Amino acid sequence: MIVLGSEKVVKIGIVGFGIVGSGVYEVLRTNSDGIAAKTGGIDIKYILDIRDFSDHAESHLFVSDFDTIVNDREVSIIVETMGGLTPAYEYTKKALLSGKSVVTSNKELVATYGDELLQIAADNKCSYLFEASVGGGIPVIRPLNQCLAANKIEAITGILNGSTNYILTQIIKHGQPFEEALKGAQQNGYAESDPTADVEGHDACRKICILTSLVTGKKIDCDKVYTQGITNITLRDVEYAEKLGSVIKLIGMSRVEDNGKITVMVAPMMLSLNNPLSHVESVNNAVMVSGNAIGDAMFYGPGAGKLPTASAVVADVIDIVCGGAGRIMWSKADGEIITPQSEVEFRFFVRVDSGVDKSEITRVFGANEYITVCEDEYGFVTCKMTENMLKQKLSTFVSAGYIRVLD
Amino acid sequence: MIVLGSEKVVKIGIVGFGIVGSGVYEVLRTNSDGIAAKTGGIDIKYILDIRDFSDHAESHLFVSDFDTIVNDREVSIIVETMGGLTPAYEYTKKALLSGKSVVTSNKELVATYGDELLQIAADNKCSYLFEASVGGGIPVIRPLNQCLAANKIEAITGILNGSTNYILTQIIKHGQPFEEALKGAQQNGYAESDPTADVEGHDACRKICILTSLVTGKKIDCDKVYTQGITNITLRDVEYAEKLGSVIKLIGMSRVEDNGKITVMVAPMMLSLNNPLSHVESVNNAVMVSGNAIGDAMFYGPGAGKLPTASAVVADVIDIVCGGAGRIMWSKADGEIITPQSEVEFRFFVRVDSGVDKSEITRVFGANEYITVCEDEYGFVTCKMTENMLKQKLSTFVSAGYIRVLD
Repeated sequence: MIVLGSEKVVKIGIVGFGIVGSGVYEVLRTNSDGIAAKTGGIDIKYILDIRDFSDHAESHLFVSDFDTIVNDREVSIIVETMGGLTPAYEYTKKALLSGKSVVTSNKELVATYGDELLQIAADNKCSYLFEASVGGGIPVIRPLNQCLAANKIEAITGILNGSTNYILTQIIKHGQPFEEALKGAQQNGYAESDPTADVEGHDACRKICILTSLVTGKKIDCDKVYTQGITNITLRDVEYAEKLGSVIKLIGMSRVEDNGKITVMVAPMMLSLNNPLSHVESVNNAVMVSGNAIGDAMFYGPGAGKLPTASAVVADVIDIVCGGAGRIMWSKADGEIITPQSEVEFRFFVRVDSGVDKSEITRVFGANEYITVCEDEYGFVTCKMTENMLKQKLSTFVSAGYIRVLD
Repeated sequence: MIVLGSEKVVKIGIVGFGIVGSGVYEVLRTNSDGIAAKTGGIDIKYILDIRDFSDHAESHLFVSDFDTIVNDREVSIIVETMGGLTPAYEYTKKALLSGKSVVTSNKELVATYGDELLQIAADNKCSYLFEASVGGGIPVIRPLNQCLAANKIEAITGILNGSTNYILTQIIKHGQPFEEALKGAQQNGYAESDPTADVEGHDACRKICILTSLVTGKKIDCDKVYTQGITNITLRDVEYAEKLGSVIKLIGMSRVEDNGKITVMVAPMMLSLNNPLSHVESVNNAVMVSGNAIGDAMFYGPGAGKLPTASAVVADVIDIVCGGAGRIMWSKADGEIITPQSEVEFRFFVRVDSGVDKSEITRVFGANEYITVCEDEYGFVTCKMTENMLKQKLSTFVSAGYIRVLD
């Protein structure tokens, strides 16, 4: 049993009663005994949602005006589960300025205004926590923050988006083309009707930016991060990967370089089956953290979903109540801190027309193994080079595309 | 960047300068800047070891009398990295009684006297932390304790011993017989010269007992836990597993049953490749935690080793300094809380002589698929039953053994 401290019932407000907000309600109600044993009790005083919930079993909790919550001195923690920037940004600021801690699952807000909101929280001696904004239910931020506190974190590599991992799993395991796999994901509620943020990598980008900001203390601007989605991945790419003893995953990665710059990017990559991330399937997410003492540690679990995400939100609330929330802080960097993508080197898996002379490929790319899955082309893995270098070297050959190899 | 609190340099003593103790020293020295930024500074005032370290670069830190450390009011945290029960138990008790927090990697001590030592820590308003005692470097206790605090934890399933996982990986991947794999593990420093505690499952048993005590609040007595090692696993078992799309792993598991009892055991089991634990290889460990909100989350990483283990020890020290250490507590249970092994049901993979009539097997065990890897026998998977039931049903057939299947 865990006895964490405080004995007073803490009153909270839930702002936004969508999937995550209603999940927070459900977790707090279902597990109230266990949570009370750890905290002394967490009581929902208000739920803010402009929709009509008069049929709800606890309809008396619902209010439609944020000021009712923020002006109530009994409320000490606000759970923001609205998503989006407006009005979540304004509400969060108002809450923190009034000294109320805020817990959120809103990755867009954290990635965009995290630096400012964390500073406001610090100035007002309250907390701004967002475990649920990265990796859904998987504990990532707290492990990074506390469990690996003895380490210099050198790299983070993750499968950070459940929709795209589900789609890729369908392509890999069931041979579905991208469009069909996407449709299935939408039908199963694993992808939005507008899937752009997921399939183009923007969602994964926000998450790797948040994690990198956390580790480096510097705000990483999503707009400046090279981001490539999975819309161009074909069944043939997947076949090649399989022949190489690999799989294709959408990877968000960042690495602190010796020159102090940070290499950060999102792109589909080929991973060897020896890499534990290669076995992360369906809507699961995982984050591999490399530290100078621990080596590689991986955190794995459901990357999204009502109750898993709510589990992470409520853990943050409990942490605030028990006084265990360490202070997180990052700030705008002076000057450019991201390694220009033009300098980032990878090995690449390249597909070329079957007419291309193999000895030429060996001469130009240092490749010595060729992979064939069909008659009209073959594939090979290059030595390490930048993408520009690859494009230049490839310009004299007929190529059907390439993909990065994660080492 | 993480700013966790306190600004005063904290003085600690390291008791036992073996592999883990010297790793703690190394991590504190190597990452001192980062650790100081989080804590205000952690300074090693003493190192206790009865061996001669007069050649050590900081030989002035070494003392040979525990009282020097425990009587120094400047020292607020003692790192116990001696291992064993004597004199670690006495030292730990003395330290906690004097109000000094203790951090340890000593699983034997925690499993045996954890309940008493945690109570003494609580009575004396200090902490007794032991993240490194389970899973080496992998953060497990803190994630269970805090990150999943919103959950009712229903089950824990883990690969908790690096030596045996290395040996099994060698058997599976390289077709080495057990004895040869064990010898290799010893030569590589992955197994002790007396490997009993590892290969017979006792080490994994201590760890699953600690984790189960943590989750249930009740002391789980190692002596009462069914524990089976891996010494009988043969290459043929591994071949069968492969044919079934499975692998064999040494699993420590516990589950809170609806009747309130706790099923807890250690045994080699067959795992489907769909189970994320099946891909945990070599000396790595992993713990899968099932909670009623999060579903399944897994923590993966190096299960042993100097710096990974030290990473976990130092994280505990940082937690105490920053005031983030939640209070952990468990106590002796009234009466029997462990499900008798005679009531625990599994599906079993069974090997029988090739002369055994398959229609008889279908009739008796409900099996409808037969696996063959050689001429003189075949294998099948039973429906769920107790081991006693299996033995009884199997008594009329010629069998070459059986192994549990993890569902």
